Amino acid sequence: MTAPSLRREALPGVLLDGLKSLLGERLSTSQAVRDQHGRDESYHAPFPPDAVAFVRSTEEVAAIVRLCADHKSPVIPFGTGTSLEGHVAALKGGVSIDLSQMNRILRIGAADLDATVEAGVTRKALNDHLRDTGLFFPIDPGADASLGGMAATRASGTNAVRYGTMRENVLALKVVLADGRVVDTARRARKSAAGYDLTRLFVGSEGTLGVITELTLRLYGIPEAISAAACAFPTLEAAVETVTLTIQSGVPVARIELLDEAQIAAINAYSKLELRVAPTLFFEFHGTEKGVAEDIDIVKALAGEHGGEDFRWARTPEARSKLWQARHDAYYAALAQRPGAKGWATDVCVPISRLAECIKETKRDLAQSRIPSALVGHVGDGNFHLVFIIDPNRQEEVAEAARLNERMVRRALAMEGTCSGEHGVGYGKMDFLEAEFGEGLLLMRAIKKALDPDNILNPGKIVRV
Amino acid sequence: MTAPSLRREALPGVLLDGLKSLLGERLSTSQAVRDQHGRDESYHAPFPPDAVAFVRSTEEVAAIVRLCADHKSPVIPFGTGTSLEGHVAALKGGVSIDLSQMNRILRIGAADLDATVEAGVTRKALNDHLRDTGLFFPIDPGADASLGGMAATRASGTNAVRYGTMRENVLALKVVLADGRVVDTARRARKSAAGYDLTRLFVGSEGTLGVITELTLRLYGIPEAISAAACAFPTLEAAVETVTLTIQSGVPVARIELLDEAQIAAINAYSKLELRVAPTLFFEFHGTEKGVAEDIDIVKALAGEHGGEDFRWARTPEARSKLWQARHDAYYAALAQRPGAKGWATDVCVPISRLAECIKETKRDLAQSRIPSALVGHVGDGNFHLVFIIDPNRQEEVAEAARLNERMVRRALAMEGTCSGEHGVGYGKMDFLEAEFGEGLLLMRAIKKALDPDNILNPGKIVRV
Repeated sequence: MTAPSLRREALPGVLLDGLKSLLGERLSTSQAVRDQHGRDESYHAPFPPDAVAFVRSTEEVAAIVRLCADHKSPVIPFGTGTSLEGHVAALKGGVSIDLSQMNRILRIGAADLDATVEAGVTRKALNDHLRDTGLFFPIDPGADASLGGMAATRASGTNAVRYGTMRENVLALKVVLADGRVVDTARRARKSAAGYDLTRLFVGSEGTLGVITELTLRLYGIPEAISAAACAFPTLEAAVETVTLTIQSGVPVARIELLDEAQIAAINAYSKLELRVAPTLFFEFHGTEKGVAEDIDIVKALAGEHGGEDFRWARTPEARSKLWQARHDAYYAALAQRPGAKGWATDVCVPISRLAECIKETKRDLAQSRIPSALVGHVGDGNFHLVFIIDPNRQEEVAEAARLNERMVRRALAMEGTCSGEHGVGYGKMDFLEAEFGEGLLLMRAIKKALDPDNILNPGKIVRV
Repeated sequence: MTAPSLRREALPGVLLDGLKSLLGERLSTSQAVRDQHGRDESYHAPFPPDAVAFVRSTEEVAAIVRLCADHKSPVIPFGTGTSLEGHVAALKGGVSIDLSQMNRILRIGAADLDATVEAGVTRKALNDHLRDTGLFFPIDPGADASLGGMAATRASGTNAVRYGTMRENVLALKVVLADGRVVDTARRARKSAAGYDLTRLFVGSEGTLGVITELTLRLYGIPEAISAAACAFPTLEAAVETVTLTIQSGVPVARIELLDEAQIAAINAYSKLELRVAPTLFFEFHGTEKGVAEDIDIVKALAGEHGGEDFRWARTPEARSKLWQARHDAYYAALAQRPGAKGWATDVCVPISRLAECIKETKRDLAQSRIPSALVGHVGDGNFHLVFIIDPNRQEEVAEAARLNERMVRRALAMEGTCSGEHGVGYGKMDFLEAEFGEGLLLMRAIKKALDPDNILNPGKIVRV
């Protein structure tokens, strides 16, 4: 990781005046608000913006971007601030556009299994709203992130192995471009062969190509039967082997999550569970009653062959919620193990055939290190996470985390994997992106330059220009 | 449709010499070969290239593109020539790059359910190769198209309702850019949050942003149980209603295809079937024995409520193959109804809630017209096709087909649909693309200009620059 450039200029007074007359009280330059908007949940150094705009419509976003474009001042979209690679840091100052007040659910298309929402709606707010419809939206990163932010970072989560990531579940976006123009990236049709895939261009672009203000998303019917269980394994390898065989068997498992023994100890303490402290898989099965029973039989047999005998079933919706909330809180649980510590979270994703080897070598590295860490992962996709629990004031711990992180990322790249399965690039993984893509990075740079010639959209993230 | 510009210049002699010394006998300037490469299976006027290069490696493609770039001469990728909107027409002359000899299957990753192939491998060749592995590749446009061409046109087919289109099933591409550089768009990991989605940028770009030379594709396990059936309905509306309810019910139907009575009559004659001449759905179910039985029960009940009682089951693999081959040959069957006629094929895709209405209004138009047509569709996605069977020498028939086509496309757009669900844009639907995207088209143009500043890659397709 290269330290970001610190060249920055104060926001021109005339721009501030323009923003104030547009937004009134909804433009803030208070230190507390600016500090909060320059920081995400990661270990990365925060960089507060010069001002924060609390917007309420696409038109307001467009007007702000036009004003900023006139002055070549940076614009940084902000959802819930739960990113993990410094995505919201205002490296060169500028205006943070806080979309949390754009929280209207505009349309539920029950017949088409889709919904259109403003970018500030969070995933839980959408699912709360859907409660009585029999439908749900499956993508669930740990945090209750905004859907706009989830699209911008190509988020996934525990259901991705069955339902895909934001890549597969965004049908269309409304986006404000660098010059303030507003475009719709697609229609509501399920598929289209009409022109370049503008939707996928913005999904994962982390605010560097445009500001997402509305999304049309796929929804799914809540399955007739849902079963969840935790199962402990004698070794991490045995658990990972079970995952690999499950995926290869074609069982349409909805969730299959790995937690190492450190992580289980942490969530037992944090979420008041009494799981056996051992490498553990959390499973969930979706389908008809008969279908789920069939799936469970197959997976129990595969687990049994690898010493995974002890299935603990979450039989009620409440028990299931508790299990998955504990999984989603894994990061906070790990942090709580060392009061005052900060988490250094990172993730990689490799082809499933290389997963066991990649995790095994990574664990060997960790065993030789003195800083505490926990491993957890959406292993059905080949994706796993590490969180190092460090004292950020101890330079040697920071350096050690950086060293272990780099080794893990380069190991994943050598195994035909990617430097991030779901956390994204932000300003934390730009050098790794270069290592991953080589010439492809020049292509990303060409796209960035074409769509944002003055580099005002979240500058200093994904690609250097 | 606007007639394409005819400005074109002959290929410079020095470029031809360079190509000849690179390819020897594998460079052809014969009239027959040029004619064959300027024409696809559509009604669109053919435009032969000046030369055809039969390539055998990515390096050769890169060398050709570099030579053409030096002279700002057009480059048009060519797979099997089965496109339907004039995609391969050399509107401004130039060099057609025929990739059919790049037909090696480079790697089958059974453990990862993926494969890497050269761009000239056809979908049937890949599935033949997979025969003994228990795996298959599901995307099946009617023609036995090359996989490179299928990625370039974002192809789909009868399995898309269950398995997605090329958008969901391409993991990575190797692409030669406009200046001859070669990039890999992604790693083999199932998901990634690392940078812009270069893979999806090229899927559907129709050779206008780069030449695809290799693909890494998702594979699937052949299901334990497969059942297929045809079922006749009293009316087209009843059939479409059954489709809509099936999709909304969440039954994971693998294929659900609509054929109108004209199409059934045509395939009975062409494919030696004895189906009742009525609006008909072809179904296929994939899963475990029990799962398929459950799915069939649900769908039979839904069909029965709409007068669809007469399920004719294809019980053997041979009977199933015959049914689906007949479906894939629907276009040729329709053409055979009027000897000497040409097909004018078109397609649209709308949200499933608007499908019945869109088809009903389209059929009303057709009933008032005198040119024969057949309707067929991947209706589980909201996608349907029309083929007008016309005498291309009769100007009034051509004009009438164009009028009906335009009415159908504008109807689909008014229903939040797209101007093409799977045939693509080529040079046949550029005006409709503009109507569909508005400002979004400027974004496509900006991308095209950034990646191909001299407009040498398949010029005159998708966007005008």
